[in-house]
Amino acid sequence: MAHEVRGRAWLQAMLDFEAALARAVAPADAAEAIAAACVADGFDLEEIGRSAADKGTPVPGLLSALRAKLPEDAAAHLHRGATSQDVVDSAAMLVAGRALGPLLEDLGAAADACAGLAERYRDAPMAGRTLLQQAAPITFGLEAAGWLSGLDQVQTELADVRANGLAVQLGGAVGTLAALGDEGPAAVASVARSLGLAEPALPWQTVRVRPVRLACALGAAAGVMGKIARDVELLAQTEVGEVSEGGGEGRGGSSTLPHKRNPVGAVAVSACAARVPGLVATMLASMTQEHERAAGAWQAEAETLSDLLRLTGSAAAALRGLLEGLEVDTDRMRANLDITGGLLMSESVVTALTPSLGRAKAREVVEEAARRVMDEGVSLREALPDVDDATLAPESYLGAASELIDRALEAHRSSA
Amino acid sequence: MAHEVRGRAWLQAMLDFEAALARAVAPADAAEAIAAACVADGFDLEEIGRSAADKGTPVPGLLSALRAKLPEDAAAHLHRGATSQDVVDSAAMLVAGRALGPLLEDLGAAADACAGLAERYRDAPMAGRTLLQQAAPITFGLEAAGWLSGLDQVQTELADVRANGLAVQLGGAVGTLAALGDEGPAAVASVARSLGLAEPALPWQTVRVRPVRLACALGAAAGVMGKIARDVELLAQTEVGEVSEGGGEGRGGSSTLPHKRNPVGAVAVSACAARVPGLVATMLASMTQEHERAAGAWQAEAETLSDLLRLTGSAAAALRGLLEGLEVDTDRMRANLDITGGLLMSESVVTALTPSLGRAKAREVVEEAARRVMDEGVSLREALPDVDDATLAPESYLGAASELIDRALEAHRSSA
Amino acid sequence: MAHEVRGRAWLQAMLDFEAALARAVAPADAAEAIAAACVADGFDLEEIGRSAADKGTPVPGLLSALRAKLPEDAAAHLHRGATSQDVVDSAAMLVAGRALGPLLEDLGAAADACAGLAERYRDAPMAGRTLLQQAAPITFGLEAAGWLSGLDQVQTELADVRANGLAVQLGGAVGTLAALGDEGPAAVASVARSLGLAEPALPWQTVRVRPVRLACALGAAAGVMGKIARDVELLAQTEVGEVSEGGGEGRGGSSTLPHKRNPVGAVAVSACAARVPGLVATMLASMTQEHERAAGAWQAEAETLSDLLRLTGSAAAALRGLLEGLEVDTDRMRANLDITGGLLMSESVVTALTPSLGRAKAREVVEEAARRVMDEGVSLREALPDVDDATLAPESYLGAASELIDRALEAHRSSA
Amino acid sequence: MAHEVRGRAWLQAMLDFEAALARAVAPADAAEAIAAACVADGFDLEEIGRSAADKGTPVPGLLSALRAKLPEDAAAHLHRGATSQDVVDSAAMLVAGRALGPLLEDLGAAADACAGLAERYRDAPMAGRTLLQQAAPITFGLEAAGWLSGLDQVQTELADVRANGLAVQLGGAVGTLAALGDEGPAAVASVARSLGLAEPALPWQTVRVRPVRLACALGAAAGVMGKIARDVELLAQTEVGEVSEGGGEGRGGSSTLPHKRNPVGAVAVSACAARVPGLVATMLASMTQEHERAAGAWQAEAETLSDLLRLTGSAAAALRGLLEGLEVDTDRMRANLDITGGLLMSESVVTALTPSLGRAKAREVVEEAARRVMDEGVSLREALPDVDDATLAPESYLGAASELIDRALEAHRSSA
Repeated sequence: MAHEVRGRAWLQAMLDFEAALARAVAPADAAEAIAAACVADGFDLEEIGRSAADKGTPVPGLLSALRAKLPEDAAAHLHRGATSQDVVDSAAMLVAGRALGPLLEDLGAAADACAGLAERYRDAPMAGRTLLQQAAPITFGLEAAGWLSGLDQVQTELADVRANGLAVQLGGAVGTLAALGDEGPAAVASVARSLGLAEPALPWQTVRVRPVRLACALGAAAGVMGKIARDVELLAQTEVGEVSEGGGEGRGGSSTLPHKRNPVGAVAVSACAARVPGLVATMLASMTQEHERAAGAWQAEAETLSDLLRLTGSAAAALRGLLEGLEVDTDRMRANLDITGGLLMSESVVTALTPSLGRAKAREVVEEAARRVMDEGVSLREALPDVDDATLAPESYLGAASELIDRALEAHRSSA
Repeated sequence: MAHEVRGRAWLQAMLDFEAALARAVAPADAAEAIAAACVADGFDLEEIGRSAADKGTPVPGLLSALRAKLPEDAAAHLHRGATSQDVVDSAAMLVAGRALGPLLEDLGAAADACAGLAERYRDAPMAGRTLLQQAAPITFGLEAAGWLSGLDQVQTELADVRANGLAVQLGGAVGTLAALGDEGPAAVASVARSLGLAEPALPWQTVRVRPVRLACALGAAAGVMGKIARDVELLAQTEVGEVSEGGGEGRGGSSTLPHKRNPVGAVAVSACAARVPGLVATMLASMTQEHERAAGAWQAEAETLSDLLRLTGSAAAALRGLLEGLEVDTDRMRANLDITGGLLMSESVVTALTPSLGRAKAREVVEEAARRVMDEGVSLREALPDVDDATLAPESYLGAASELIDRALEAHRSSA
Repeated sequence: MAHEVRGRAWLQAMLDFEAALARAVAPADAAEAIAAACVADGFDLEEIGRSAADKGTPVPGLLSALRAKLPEDAAAHLHRGATSQDVVDSAAMLVAGRALGPLLEDLGAAADACAGLAERYRDAPMAGRTLLQQAAPITFGLEAAGWLSGLDQVQTELADVRANGLAVQLGGAVGTLAALGDEGPAAVASVARSLGLAEPALPWQTVRVRPVRLACALGAAAGVMGKIARDVELLAQTEVGEVSEGGGEGRGGSSTLPHKRNPVGAVAVSACAARVPGLVATMLASMTQEHERAAGAWQAEAETLSDLLRLTGSAAAALRGLLEGLEVDTDRMRANLDITGGLLMSESVVTALTPSLGRAKAREVVEEAARRVMDEGVSLREALPDVDDATLAPESYLGAASELIDRALEAHRSSA
Repeated sequence: MAHEVRGRAWLQAMLDFEAALARAVAPADAAEAIAAACVADGFDLEEIGRSAADKGTPVPGLLSALRAKLPEDAAAHLHRGATSQDVVDSAAMLVAGRALGPLLEDLGAAADACAGLAERYRDAPMAGRTLLQQAAPITFGLEAAGWLSGLDQVQTELADVRANGLAVQLGGAVGTLAALGDEGPAAVASVARSLGLAEPALPWQTVRVRPVRLACALGAAAGVMGKIARDVELLAQTEVGEVSEGGGEGRGGSSTLPHKRNPVGAVAVSACAARVPGLVATMLASMTQEHERAAGAWQAEAETLSDLLRLTGSAAAALRGLLEGLEVDTDRMRANLDITGGLLMSESVVTALTPSLGRAKAREVVEEAARRVMDEGVSLREALPDVDDATLAPESYLGAASELIDRALEAHRSSA
């Protein structure tokens, strides 16, 4: 299914290019005839696929099929001045632009969901964890604000790529536009306008900054999503239990293991994200393209880019669902704060005692108390009877958490 | 040596962070004492290196060594409110900013050299090649303009990263700035100002968009440089001979093979560029960072980023040298245009004959003539006696090459 | 199409696992009923695909569809003791084993073709090239022997993986086989036997050495193929012209550029090979699998492995076609040996003069002569009138080329 | 320091090659003189490093320095018949062989430690976890047996690479051994013998299966180590607490956060393992080497291979330390088994009830009970009063765990 969709999306994009080119360089009636024939539904995707396997590019097969639908005088104007790579590269940009629509929408909704969590759980203390060990208190609102900040950054980058980075490719056989005589540059401008793509200063057939910039932006987006998914998987562990994925009956359930609430959305995001770095590396390595058309490196790009769009898009959809339905257990968060017997507040105590004792002495006192907590099983409260309650309360050692949440929310609002 | 330099550059950057932090949060005299001690030359790099191997981070060892140089009351204010990761991440940004200076200068000079080549060889025809086969004529000026366009794009991106993407990291143990009480956000702003880095909305200790954006911009730069190097290697082949690397006596020479003019600069660029995609993939894969500090993924970044800066910087220096000294043999370019017996002009003839014969018939005529050229060894000129000379002259089938060169030069001037 | 084939191949492999498991753990009549239903043609691939998207694994959907085809008492025995991962991992091994058949056949035929070239062109001198510069003579037979040696090595490795590396996975929910009571180990042995897979010492659900070893062997195979393809592309360049891809009318042709003989087979191999390293990296990075089933890393493997098998298989088929039809132009090879005016023989002259003059003096003489060749346009023959003809003849400076060819052929015969 | 060691190890290996070559092709007294001079301590590493930066290879600088130490008649025989790549490639194999010694020892010790854990905790029940959720009981012995099995597999592979995969490279300028006249093949055999490396059938200067096989074996080893480290990090979480890294005072401690027992060994392993896949991809992508010496791809290998050896070696040393000192808390394991109120035993109950009720009904009963456990807070024991105790005891639902441990131990003993 995904494959079929992918095939048809590419096919339509290639046809859109031919239609736009015809409007730019063919007489009006031929252009109309060509444009009218450029509808993907009329084509046999499998047959074109087979011809692509033979020729190494789907374009000749597509043009044959298209010519067969045209009156002879219109057919003569088809594809004028273009080379196969022009069609495929421009189609890739169109496909990317179209895929970025829902992807950005899902990313935006995921960010909105994070903003909601940041607001709602602004004052919900939880353990901050470093190297997978409880370290000091944060709030779940701050955690969500961090996620939000990551999503906003990658969304801004992807939106910029969509707005400015996707350009038409039209250069003809070797990038001179020679087969279009004097009309070349005007044709490029016209095709770009028709397709809603940028007009590049030069054809970019072997200077692959544009596809790579897109790939990198997708890579960063996948990375941020992978980070969030990872946090959710960890927080959803049976032994932690601070969040779980919501959703209807049976979601993440297992018939033999009925107690499980598998974080299936997060796992889906993680699985997509795990595949992205290798694909971005392929795009980067493929920048070494010879002369005016590469022997292999260019041909390696199209499916790789499709996979990047598909995987990042799937991850965004799964992440959105996950965040919109996330169930948060603030009681469990509060309970987990206590499992170290208060040791989580050690830094707080050191900070509080430093003005009076000096830092070295303050540390010594806390280390001694910590030893008693760990060895004798008393609580830090008991080990340090003179320290005031506030100093031992997670709620009172949250630093700038709330202000940082405000900043993230403000940045989110202004990026929307 | 490179390692030593790398070590010292990192060390100084970490010290710069501590000095800036002290200025932000310590009393003036303690801050002065700390800042005065923060000079890399006074430290034993090897000892700090050893301590890093033990602890997994160089920061505790560095702080011990630094404390030993301070009066006790100044020492008490050292590193207040910061965690090891704050030091390393901020230092990474400083190191990157400092490495980007020469890198951007070399990239800029390489681009200038391309601009010079584009201007000088604007009208020098050569074979355009696709899939490593001669296809149709271009000019060497257009080739150089393509290179220029790639270099300008990646330079713009890297300059933007340097100007806006490098931010201080300061969050304390879990990103709340709690150990700084109310002073946290002001301290972040102050440290950022001191170090000439951006002030981030939030600490970014596990949201790694910034290092990844830097890595990706370096990756794209390496890719463009790799493309140019590849073209030079191919054009410098013994059998092609259109360019060679200049340079003094012995550069690229071989004592046993005295005829060789090895493209050593291009090979150096290629070797660097070949290593970059895998490193960028490592940075992307390392975005999956748990909670408030990652267990492994963060620790994988620093050396990877150093390698990326070093390899891309080396490539830029080599590319600059290569392009500034490039020797171009326009006679050989002209001679190579003729080795297909004129078949390189086939598209030109088809284009010229189409208005009178229609495209299908025009192609048929040219294909028949091409067959004679290949089978009987006549030239296309002989096989098509009625076609006018201009149609068979590479100089007259260059399309928009000159206009495209102007565009690239114009874009270069406006990006400078 | 490829997708459909891929889907159906996986589906059948999963069904084969269920049938083998039933034979191992179900009563005979239930096992027969299950095995009879396990035929991929009876299933709706799209529906199972949709369920996989929902659940993150195709197994529950497959089992539902399968149960619907079974009498109730047989259905009760279906999938007993297994978990979804058991099905998918065992199916992956089966799919790999089946894909390796044609892949190894194509690699073997490609190696045979190289052996034929090595034999046939054993005495055909050509320029050996280093850093893309002519360096000293070799024979095309030796070039082909090098290719042969690479293909034989990777074929041996892949054959070993197929024979010993593909093992059944059966462990149940957490790898203890607990749901099978005492029958677990016997069931594993039985399923392995039925499926023609190895019986592993332990379930390997999160210890992923096996899929990685397969991926690496595919990666090495793709790398060797990429090297051969690259050489062919370079030797086929218009300016070199030493080989070309054979094949019927129109293969590699271009209607607008009728002179082109594009190395389409080599380009196809290169394009596949370019995508493989990133995919192998994904497999390696995915080895970090948590506890008894991974959250994301495992789920990233299946499509990646499919892509690796498909790309390497396509490359092998293309390479076989390319090598079986390769056209070799020994005249052009001979002619290209002369384009340096004999300088290619510099090392030969140094070697010949060293016994009488000493190496330093011999080099000096040759360097002086080389300078005259390059500056004055004389040939090395003219510049060194006293050197005997044999010393200047490529045919007489081939060292152990012929013996090395024999070794490669001998190794090939013994590996077959 | 690591860099210095790396530099000196490479230098000595290159010198060892020259000494072995001299013994193979020079008169006895010259060979002795050369061998006597081939001691790394006598050379200025920095100067050779600088020359490498100029020339793109350290070999010419090394040879100059070496010649300066030799009497003239010995100097004339230095490096006869070899090319720079021969030196570097053979040195790489020597360096690898030497690095594999401690690496294999550490891997072996780590495996021994796992064997000890498997034996000692054979009957210690703990929660098996899938998708980071508790699923059903295993034993810690089985967990350790799985780790053991992975370590044994990669150790076997690496030992095989060391024994059979490391071969001398000697081919001269273009792989024909021409400068050695008839002596070539004998010289290769002699050098291989001297250096303790395999004698290859052919020079492998551009057929890079050997370095790639080494890289892949290192990659798989890093992957297995990364999996073990990941498990340790997860089991060491504050909320899980089933294992912790032992070690002296302060290991993994934090002065501000005295309660933390950071899994520093596991984090070190994870950080190394995270960097390996990208480096292996670089080695694979670098297999595309042109003709008789590559322009860039070969030059990208040496540092990449060094990094792979260094990172995998560091990981093995850290893993060994971690496993040898691992502290296991079986009480906590037992306690964690109860936190689902017995739901972890659901599959056990289904399995037990199936013979009497049929699987469908058995599931229904358990699902109903599970619902009560989750909603009403009763235990599964209370919800299913008729089920016998054994069915609800983790100890009695361990399937073949003990037998699987035996298998892993047996395989370990026979692989030693």
